Amino acid sequence: RIDGARLWDSLMEMAQIGATPKGGCKRLTLTDLDKQGRELFTRWCEEAGCTVSVDRMGNMFARRPGVDDSLPPVMLGSHLDTQPTGGKFDGVLGVLGALEVVRTLKDLNIRTKHPIEVANWTNEEGSRFAPAMVSSGVFAGEYTEEFAYSRVDAEGKTLGDELRRIGFQGDLPVGGRPIHAFFELHIEQGPILEDENLDIGVVTHGQGQRWYEITLTGFESHAGSTPMPVRKDALLGAARVVELVNRIGLANAPNAVATVGMLNPYPNSRNVIPGQVWMTIDFRCPDDAVLAGMDKALHEGVAAICAAIGLEQETKQIFYYPPVAFEESCVTAVRDAASKLGYTHRNIVSGAGHDACYIARVAPTAMIFTPCVDGISHNETEDIKPEWATAGANVLLQAALAKAEI
Amino acid sequence: RIDGARLWDSLMEMAQIGATPKGGCKRLTLTDLDKQGRELFTRWCEEAGCTVSVDRMGNMFARRPGVDDSLPPVMLGSHLDTQPTGGKFDGVLGVLGALEVVRTLKDLNIRTKHPIEVANWTNEEGSRFAPAMVSSGVFAGEYTEEFAYSRVDAEGKTLGDELRRIGFQGDLPVGGRPIHAFFELHIEQGPILEDENLDIGVVTHGQGQRWYEITLTGFESHAGSTPMPVRKDALLGAARVVELVNRIGLANAPNAVATVGMLNPYPNSRNVIPGQVWMTIDFRCPDDAVLAGMDKALHEGVAAICAAIGLEQETKQIFYYPPVAFEESCVTAVRDAASKLGYTHRNIVSGAGHDACYIARVAPTAMIFTPCVDGISHNETEDIKPEWATAGANVLLQAALAKAEI
Ligand SMILES: NC(=O)NCCC(=O)O
Ligand SMILES: NC(=O)NCCC(=O)O
Repeated sequence: RIDGARLWDSLMEMAQIGATPKGGCKRLTLTDLDKQGRELFTRWCEEAGCTVSVDRMGNMFARRPGVDDSLPPVMLGSHLDTQPTGGKFDGVLGVLGALEVVRTLKDLNIRTKHPIEVANWTNEEGSRFAPAMVSSGVFAGEYTEEFAYSRVDAEGKTLGDELRRIGFQGDLPVGGRPIHAFFELHIEQGPILEDENLDIGVVTHGQGQRWYEITLTGFESHAGSTPMPVRKDALLGAARVVELVNRIGLANAPNAVATVGMLNPYPNSRNVIPGQVWMTIDFRCPDDAVLAGMDKALHEGVAAICAAIGLEQETKQIFYYPPVAFEESCVTAVRDAASKLGYTHRNIVSGAGHDACYIARVAPTAMIFTPCVDGISHNETEDIKPEWATAGANVLLQAALAKAEI
Repeated sequence: RIDGARLWDSLMEMAQIGATPKGGCKRLTLTDLDKQGRELFTRWCEEAGCTVSVDRMGNMFARRPGVDDSLPPVMLGSHLDTQPTGGKFDGVLGVLGALEVVRTLKDLNIRTKHPIEVANWTNEEGSRFAPAMVSSGVFAGEYTEEFAYSRVDAEGKTLGDELRRIGFQGDLPVGGRPIHAFFELHIEQGPILEDENLDIGVVTHGQGQRWYEITLTGFESHAGSTPMPVRKDALLGAARVVELVNRIGLANAPNAVATVGMLNPYPNSRNVIPGQVWMTIDFRCPDDAVLAGMDKALHEGVAAICAAIGLEQETKQIFYYPPVAFEESCVTAVRDAASKLGYTHRNIVSGAGHDACYIARVAPTAMIFTPCVDGISHNETEDIKPEWATAGANVLLQAALAKAEI
């Protein structure tokens, strides 16, 4: 069993880097704070007897050698970056939980047959640079490095430049090597486990996801002297798209969700009718056919809204992945570990996207969920109980041992 | 008659300061560019034989002495600041048209009984610092200097600090002195004069205006794992407020207009349900009772929208002025000048707010409108014909002479 107090202390120490007044964490990917977080993680891994290497996407791998070091590693990990108004656990629990696994193995002097690697994936959140999980995506062959490097943040900085700026563009090629199994521990980010008073979620699937960027163009003019009937108000169009997206989500609930997260009117001046709006949309559903139906409804709806007001529009899908089924033997390893440890558990579908969803394409993969208070995430008040973290890391340890073999 | 070519040259030279690629002008109030514009204006005024003084709000007055310099001045002017995506003529025509009047009087060696002052009012646009026309508002006793100084821009800078930074906080007290008459020449910013093929609008009224800031607060959470029914999406509420504002405008058209100009969601991240939205509203109508009805409909509508989604809200009216009727003898002076010069004209109501609307409270005041192409303003493509500018400045000259007396 892992050392729950040590794990909690490390979670709290990492949360200092980018701590927000409301008790959350703002450690956006590839910022100076992310660099600090990566350096602390490196130090901890080296103290736990690991060798840290970094690939060309800034993905970090802390390796604990196996008895037979030529065997492919069992990899455990998640991400250290956060949302702008993020919590202390989303992603971080999976990285520091994995670190706690190797710390425990070191304490107990346990040598595994397969090497074990603790992974920290770059830019999982997708908030500063879209899309999300872009670096595990490159690792899995979904994107090219060039595509990932050219992603741009709100200030016009590229992912590639920022990666080099903080000194975390390594030499290791991205992906292309065998992995024996990959496990990601994560908070559920939804209410089910807490509501049902369960310790562990055995994640069987991840839902499919489509992200869009929409630009609506009307005509900006004077708010005081432009009569209502002749206006081409891009913000009125955008408002109707927000309503449309909500309607599409509700029509496909309870399984589907649909969200407008960003919306930027231009020129954003009090007495100017907005001439342009840029906005983002996030659609998710465990059923790919339903997701395709939502896509169709979006395109038709946006076209109708724009025709009614006289707006031009561009609707781009910038991100898509189909629903993922995790690998049978890995899912079983998680379920067996929970049972063996006496934790209550159930099968669950992930609402959020995770690096594991990409790694599942190139390695046998599964995920472990722990409850989180009120299902709240992507919010500074995101919270978990120390015993939940302990349970999750214990399951991670046992599942890893099942695959890495003693 | 004024020198139309010289006026046009000056308009084009001033438009270089803050020129935008699309042919417009971005010279936001109290920026370095505004400082440059003010310095050029000062030089031109001094070359035209005027003495420039600046009051504590940065309002500039270029004085041409009268034969009896103890008489109150006839004041002519408007503003040199622009919208972020503004044009070359909104405000600038009124200032440089007034300058052209004193240049012409100098050329012709005409001495007027009353002194003539050319005014440039600070922060007319209200885009960087709300409310609009704040400095003519202080001049007219609507606001205190302290209120105006404490206005904050999007970056948190105050109007007072920016005024001092560019070196244009003068010593002159703001207002409190007699003005014999005030005339403001301005582009119509609407389509009527051009549609009716008229040279001049004799402005009889300015419409009433109410500005609001609304903050909607919901709960930010994960876009992928928060089921639709439990969401408190502040952006969905904001979208409904945009639709409400549009409905209120249409219900009171053709006279009333209603606009949402700014809308900022928070945290503005693709995969976070927005927890908060801040937005601005602009209502206008020439009929104060109708404007009051729009205010009531807004408050009721916002309350209902928020109750339905479970949002908190704060709706603040930050700016109000009732409809203005310009002074009879000044309006007559404008109409007579247009007739005498052989220009076609009609009475017209101003859709936009103007410094003249505040000055009307402390001095006999009227306005002169010239057509503008397609009624477009607050847009980089805003345009006028040189002969329209000439006609407007000729009317300004004759109206000024009628009041200043030779
Ligand atoms: N786990 C998590 O919050 N990932 C961010 C990507 C997403 O699901 O939107
Ligand atoms: N004339 C003009 O555009 N003024 C700006 C203030 C307003 O009317 O919104």
